[in-house]
Amino acid sequence: MRSKHPPTGSAFWLYGLHAARAALVNRRRKVKRAVLTDRALGELGSALGSVPVETTSPEAVGRLLPSGAVHQGIALLCDPLPALDLETVLGNGEPGRIVAVLDQITDPHNEGAILRSAAAFGAAAVVVQDRHAPPESGALAKAASGALDIVPRIVTVNIARTLEELGEMGFWRIALAADGDAPLAQSARPGDIALVFGAEGAGLRRLVRQRCDIAAFIPIARGMESLNVSNAAAIAFYELAKR
Amino acid sequence: MRSKHPPTGSAFWLYGLHAARAALVNRRRKVKRAVLTDRALGELGSALGSVPVETTSPEAVGRLLPSGAVHQGIALLCDPLPALDLETVLGNGEPGRIVAVLDQITDPHNEGAILRSAAAFGAAAVVVQDRHAPPESGALAKAASGALDIVPRIVTVNIARTLEELGEMGFWRIALAADGDAPLAQSARPGDIALVFGAEGAGLRRLVRQRCDIAAFIPIARGMESLNVSNAAAIAFYELAKR
Repeated sequence: MRSKHPPTGSAFWLYGLHAARAALVNRRRKVKRAVLTDRALGELGSALGSVPVETTSPEAVGRLLPSGAVHQGIALLCDPLPALDLETVLGNGEPGRIVAVLDQITDPHNEGAILRSAAAFGAAAVVVQDRHAPPESGALAKAASGALDIVPRIVTVNIARTLEELGEMGFWRIALAADGDAPLAQSARPGDIALVFGAEGAGLRRLVRQRCDIAAFIPIARGMESLNVSNAAAIAFYELAKR
Repeated sequence: MRSKHPPTGSAFWLYGLHAARAALVNRRRKVKRAVLTDRALGELGSALGSVPVETTSPEAVGRLLPSGAVHQGIALLCDPLPALDLETVLGNGEPGRIVAVLDQITDPHNEGAILRSAAAFGAAAVVVQDRHAPPESGALAKAASGALDIVPRIVTVNIARTLEELGEMGFWRIALAADGDAPLAQSARPGDIALVFGAEGAGLRRLVRQRCDIAAFIPIARGMESLNVSNAAAIAFYELAKR
């Protein structure tokens, strides 16, 4: 079964140089308009291709965006990416891949940072749940620092079901949980791995955790209950990159 | 020389259960008022001690705070913590300590997440620069999830000078930099270590980097320029915790 569904969401303003550069070179990304300063135009140059361009002041760029957005003089009006399904992204490929599965992590800064680390450590995909994940937005793209247009982001309807499919594809499914059975460093295996992260506070849902092969923890001091989820993900990618 | 200066900043609203609990048990923290729901009152109970309490609706708590603040029914009016100096915090102690030094990281979410990971991995202190660090605020305390009241946070006037002092105290000073000389895992030593992080974008200032004993990198894929700084810090704490 595929987690295929029509591309959702409406056009949004993507901002910041890293995010813009990655969007412009991503063939799957439709960029409809660029509003930018002369300086940003100089930096992006030919990457803009045939995108209609309007040069203006930094203040005018800022007025298109949420207040306080660090836009570096550029805003791109973009469509969300077309939907991807598990089979297309992961059906073929060399074993040794890492996939991150996010169970209802709704904060765009957290998901964006996870995408960024996923790209930095060469993860094959990030899976999120439709309706319990942030929509594509400027804030998500900015936090991802380009990675939204680099790492395949698979939007699925049912995370537990997706974990079954990953299991059938041979992925070893590791749930990250403070009360896990073993330290993460001792929970990995050769081959493909899915790392499953729950939302802060709520943690992993029971049915999601049950679909995993092992629950692993990152050893931390007693006084603290948990790490920020994007920090935990970064550590997990780092640890597994050493296999 | 000490980086001592008078406590700065005015009272602020701290919110969220983890942050509130940690503030209430921190003897150095002056809590002037608590505005909270009956439910939060039930959760915090005797931790409130002699703090004047006013129970109200979640909406009324929210009106004291920035819009969208996830307050979990509690807001505490707090004074910033009294200033700490390097000598008091680090003058004595078993070797093997980790200190994080933040060079002009101004985003409260990044600093907060770093404090949280510092607490989770038992760091001895976090050093920030006066006037180029976020003031104590609800957003910083919330992102730190209690750690603002757990990890000693030293506010210094001059980071380069502080690194000299740390060197005199025997700390091995590791600058984290994408173009570092060696992978982090090969840059550590036994004994006390200072990990030095620069701001996103700007990176470490030259004079700060010059005061370090080595520049280390976290190995990442080519396509990405860097990690989010709090993610990099989490990885560094994790790596060094294995010494």
